[in-house]
Amino acid sequence: MNSLFKNFNLKAGEVMLNEILDFITSFNCKYDFKGTVIGISGGLDSAVTACLCAKALGAQNVYGLILPERDSSKKTLKDALKICDFLKIPHKVHKISGELRHIGAYKLQPPAFFIPSFIKEKYAKKNWESLGKENIFFKDLSNSGDSFFLKGLAYYRAKHRIRMCKFYLEAEKRGYSVVGTTNKTEFLTGLYVKYGDDSVDYEPIFHLYKTQVIELAKKLSLPDFIIEKKPSPDLIPGIDDEYIFSMNYYDLDRLLIKINNKESLDNENQDLVKRIKKIIEYAKFREIKSVHL
Amino acid sequence: MNSLFKNFNLKAGEVMLNEILDFITSFNCKYDFKGTVIGISGGLDSAVTACLCAKALGAQNVYGLILPERDSSKKTLKDALKICDFLKIPHKVHKISGELRHIGAYKLQPPAFFIPSFIKEKYAKKNWESLGKENIFFKDLSNSGDSFFLKGLAYYRAKHRIRMCKFYLEAEKRGYSVVGTTNKTEFLTGLYVKYGDDSVDYEPIFHLYKTQVIELAKKLSLPDFIIEKKPSPDLIPGIDDEYIFSMNYYDLDRLLIKINNKESLDNENQDLVKRIKKIIEYAKFREIKSVHL
Repeated sequence: MNSLFKNFNLKAGEVMLNEILDFITSFNCKYDFKGTVIGISGGLDSAVTACLCAKALGAQNVYGLILPERDSSKKTLKDALKICDFLKIPHKVHKISGELRHIGAYKLQPPAFFIPSFIKEKYAKKNWESLGKENIFFKDLSNSGDSFFLKGLAYYRAKHRIRMCKFYLEAEKRGYSVVGTTNKTEFLTGLYVKYGDDSVDYEPIFHLYKTQVIELAKKLSLPDFIIEKKPSPDLIPGIDDEYIFSMNYYDLDRLLIKINNKESLDNENQDLVKRIKKIIEYAKFREIKSVHL
Repeated sequence: MNSLFKNFNLKAGEVMLNEILDFITSFNCKYDFKGTVIGISGGLDSAVTACLCAKALGAQNVYGLILPERDSSKKTLKDALKICDFLKIPHKVHKISGELRHIGAYKLQPPAFFIPSFIKEKYAKKNWESLGKENIFFKDLSNSGDSFFLKGLAYYRAKHRIRMCKFYLEAEKRGYSVVGTTNKTEFLTGLYVKYGDDSVDYEPIFHLYKTQVIELAKKLSLPDFIIEKKPSPDLIPGIDDEYIFSMNYYDLDRLLIKINNKESLDNENQDLVKRIKKIIEYAKFREIKSVHL
C-alpha cells in the first residue's frame, strides 16, 4: 500500500462496502427486479461485482453468464467457472461463436483456434508493434486507422455487444436487472466498448479505481488467483490492460487521481503524464452517444 | 393540417431542413466519419432519416442495412428495398434469424413462419387483449408481468439489439457512423428498445414529433406509399403503433405538445390525457441506464 488511497480512506472501507451493498439492494428493489444477471469474465472486476451482488441480493438471485467465443482462452473459462463455484451463484456457459459467425464478425479476422496460444500472442503483439504500439490505443479510441485496423475494431467490439444482447435476453425473461462491472479507471481511459460492456442497468463499482477494486477484492476475501491475475479484456490474445496502457495500474491510478484532484504532477514522469492526459481526452470519443439537435 | 404545428412553424420548414442537414454534415465531419450506416426498416422514420443523410453526405456515403428475421413481413422487406432504390443508396439485406436462433431468442416463442399472416395477426391481437390491452404497454415499459409476458419482452427486444450490433459492425469496419431514426414522440412515450434502436451515434429527427416527420417526408417528396403507411415497429404481427397507444398519432402528438408546453388540456378527452401522462411517466423506465453511486 502507498499513498494512492488517501482519498479512498481504507479505514472507511466497511462503510463504503455497506454503501455499495445498500445501493445494489435498493436499486433492484426500487425497480422491482427479482435478481440480477452478471457476465462473469474470469477477471477481477466481474468477480468483485458478483460477490457484492451475492452479498446484497443472496447468491441464488445472481445469475452468472459465461460467454466465451472462438478466441477466448481456456484458462479464462476455467477461472470464470471457479468464481461462480466459489460464490455459489447459479450460472450458465453459452458460447457466442454462432452469433459472431452469423453477424459476420469472424469474416473480419482469420480463424486461429488451431494455433498454439503463445504463437497467437506473439502474432498479436507483433501486429500491435507494427501499427505503432504507442499510438494504437488512441487510434482505437478515435476510430481511426487503415482498413485492416478498422476491421480489427469492428471485430473485437462485436464480442462485447453480442454479450450485452445475451445478458438482456436472460435478464428480461426472468425479470432480472443487468449489472455492470466497469470501474472508474476503465471509464476514464475509455477501456470499454460503447453499447457493449457499458450498457447495463446499474454499476456498483463505477466509482472505484482499478486499484481500489483490488483492495476491495482482498476485503471480500476473494481467492488469490483472482486478485493476482493480470487484468486483461481477453479480446485479443496476449494484449492485456497494462500492455495497452504501457504502464501498470498503480502508476495509472495514481496519475488519474492526481489529475482528478488537480494535484501537482511535478514529481511524475512527464511522458506518462502527457500520455494519460491524451488518453483522457481521447476517451471522450466513447461518450459520443445519440447526439441530437 | 390543423393547429398542431403552431410551435413547429411550417413556414420555417426550409430553415429547419437546412439545420438538420448542417447537423448531419458537421457531426460526421467533426468526428471524421467517412459515411453513415442506417437501418432501413421499410417505415417512415428511417426513410426520412436516410433521405436527409443522402442529401447531407451524398447518397453513395449512406449505407442502408435491411435486417429482416423470421417474423418480418415480406411487405416490409419490399418497402425497405424500394426506399433504398428510390434514394439510390448502397444497401444490403442480411437476415438476422441465425443470430437470434443462436442467442436463444427463438426458443422463447414458437415458430410461426408457416402460419398465414392474417392468422398470426389475429393470434397476436388475441394475446394482447387477453393480457389486458389497456395495460400491456405499461407492463412492457415497466418490465412487469408473468413469465409468459416477460419472455415476450426478451424476445422482441433481442431483435433490435442484434440489429444494433450489426449496424456497428458494418459501420466500424468502414469508419462510418451509425445514425438513429428515433423521433420525439417515440422517445417521450418509450416506444424504443433500451440498448437497441436508441443506441446510435447521432439522431437527426429526435427533436421532431411523429406528425412533424410525416410533414417533413412530404417536403422531401418521399413516395406516397411510405407517407401513407401505418407506423409499426414490425416486431409482432398485427401490432402497430396506434394499436399500442390506443389512439392515433395526431391525437397523441397534440396532447404531447400541449403537455410539453403546459397548455390547457380542458378541451381534451380526459381519459386520453390520463393515459398519456401515465405513458410519459412509465417511459422513464427506459432511461434507467448505468445508474451508479
